[in-house]
Amino acid sequence: MNKIQSSSSIVMFGNESYKNLIQYIEENNISKLFILVDSNTLTNCLPVFKSKFKSNILFEVIQISSGEIFKNIETSSKVWNELLLYGADRKSLLINLGGGMVSDLGGFVASTYKRGIRFINIPTTILSMVDASVGGKTGVDFGSLKNVIGVFSNPEMVLIDDDYLKTLPKREWKCGLAEVIKYGFIADIKLWNEIRDYKTLDNSNINKLIHASVSIKNEIVKADFYEKNLRKVLNFGHTIGHAFESYFLDKKNSLNHGEAIAIGMVVELFISHKMYHFPIIMVDELKEFVHHFYGKINADEKEINDIIMLLSHDKKNELGKLMFVLLEKSEYPIIDCEVSHELILEGINYYLN
Amino acid sequence: MNKIQSSSSIVMFGNESYKNLIQYIEENNISKLFILVDSNTLTNCLPVFKSKFKSNILFEVIQISSGEIFKNIETSSKVWNELLLYGADRKSLLINLGGGMVSDLGGFVASTYKRGIRFINIPTTILSMVDASVGGKTGVDFGSLKNVIGVFSNPEMVLIDDDYLKTLPKREWKCGLAEVIKYGFIADIKLWNEIRDYKTLDNSNINKLIHASVSIKNEIVKADFYEKNLRKVLNFGHTIGHAFESYFLDKKNSLNHGEAIAIGMVVELFISHKMYHFPIIMVDELKEFVHHFYGKINADEKEINDIIMLLSHDKKNELGKLMFVLLEKSEYPIIDCEVSHELILEGINYYLN
Repeated sequence: MNKIQSSSSIVMFGNESYKNLIQYIEENNISKLFILVDSNTLTNCLPVFKSKFKSNILFEVIQISSGEIFKNIETSSKVWNELLLYGADRKSLLINLGGGMVSDLGGFVASTYKRGIRFINIPTTILSMVDASVGGKTGVDFGSLKNVIGVFSNPEMVLIDDDYLKTLPKREWKCGLAEVIKYGFIADIKLWNEIRDYKTLDNSNINKLIHASVSIKNEIVKADFYEKNLRKVLNFGHTIGHAFESYFLDKKNSLNHGEAIAIGMVVELFISHKMYHFPIIMVDELKEFVHHFYGKINADEKEINDIIMLLSHDKKNELGKLMFVLLEKSEYPIIDCEVSHELILEGINYYLN
Repeated sequence: MNKIQSSSSIVMFGNESYKNLIQYIEENNISKLFILVDSNTLTNCLPVFKSKFKSNILFEVIQISSGEIFKNIETSSKVWNELLLYGADRKSLLINLGGGMVSDLGGFVASTYKRGIRFINIPTTILSMVDASVGGKTGVDFGSLKNVIGVFSNPEMVLIDDDYLKTLPKREWKCGLAEVIKYGFIADIKLWNEIRDYKTLDNSNINKLIHASVSIKNEIVKADFYEKNLRKVLNFGHTIGHAFESYFLDKKNSLNHGEAIAIGMVVELFISHKMYHFPIIMVDELKEFVHHFYGKINADEKEINDIIMLLSHDKKNELGKLMFVLLEKSEYPIIDCEVSHELILEGINYYLN
């Protein structure tokens, strides 16, 4: 239960993993160690890390602002600049201590600094534990578009420690659970059933859910690292979800990733029903849960049109067509489904009503 | 003679190669074609390309300013933005038509746009034909430091056509020959002997020199793509050379890459003499040629100190030590040589006198 080996990096769980981290640093001739934090993880997570990293290895802390709006090239430039100022060379190592924003940006910065230095991810949110930690996707947003600039690059190691979740706001817990629900629908429906019946949010079940999710993602990514094919199933809920997330990025009532993906799954499951006869009873069940658990957002006709416009910029599209992952039934995803604008509109209206 | 196969891309020579290019585009389901040019190649090279690219495949031209000072993240952002505006997706292809600045920046932009789209290089200078065309190094400058931000990424194909050299200024011809001289010293001394006896700069010999240089580089890169070891021999002349190039980047009397590398080779050959008894007669011979062919630059004591300071930011350094490629004798390079500040100073003064 305490480690998962992927094709090119290893995921370690719990307190024991800090020993592996120290061993890795000592054995790999690391010249300088850097820890990237944002303003949240500086306060909430760096003290935890320091108390568990029992070593006299020195490190420099690089701090960035927290929040998706800072996941951009300007922030990347600041980190590149700090690495230069501290004299980081090709044998330096960057540890990304934070949520997906920190690991996406930190992974991108490391992978492009002097044509690539090594990095390790220590995710501090459920979302980044189950999503960003495995898979090698790094990148930053560009304008209002998410993750447009980036590379595929693997961390040397991922260290998952649920002690970081103790200070995580409840809204972030819910955000991470949306990805776990996704793994449920595409690969192991038991995960969805468990969350559906969730009464309280606590630590007792979360470890099991995280471990199961990382295992599923790891198996899929191993089979298709560059997202030519199979890996696309991980985008279930994300085509619609990303458009909602992009659209509300600079609005007052912004959505976090999980909230947007939750909406995306409802819409895409409805489209699955229309195109592949996915049972409507399960679509209704998910919609009801999402409305209740994540709150229901509203959008008028103009807003819906703007959101559909944003869809055309999704990286997953090819040759100008809108491509979706749909479900024939639970655990049976179909990739590269072309969906009409009309059906997308119908799906969004289904969610809204 | 008309093609060289590298590990992951192919170098095609001459007029026949345009057929291969068209075939590649047709066979690979390319959604949109983009051609990156700078203000020079827009005028001098794009018409040549258009006259030889006999196809009804449409393409968009993206133009950037020419000159190393524009090889930065800001220019990259402009190109990313144009790709977005034109709706480039993951099946789009970028052709970089230009010198090393265009292929370095274009390769970086392509490799990071939506986590990587494919690109093809059509080098239009001798330097980029023999240096940037093979090897997978992409990147941009950051502040006054060269190529600090980038990735290793291979073009799908490199197309070398000496018709682009007809409009190339003589200073750029000389610039490219510096890299050919480098290949001579590290791998095939006949190349140096030929250039040393060069009377006029013309097309008659250049094809042979370019082909020989690409073959040498290709063999070395194939053996060590990520520059862990053997590939470092290609940095002969570059440790000192890059420092000179960086230092004079924003000065009135700026040096081009070849002029800087020519200085670097003289200094590093002198150090090779001091440390490994490389024959001084050959060092003197190179110095005399470089002074005569490239002109001699001057630097006072303060400037020399600033240049030596810049050395410590070289990507090739590890653990704070200054690492050089030196020569025991012709064609026998030694990598990872640690050189003292005193000897570097002595070498620079040797070049200056």
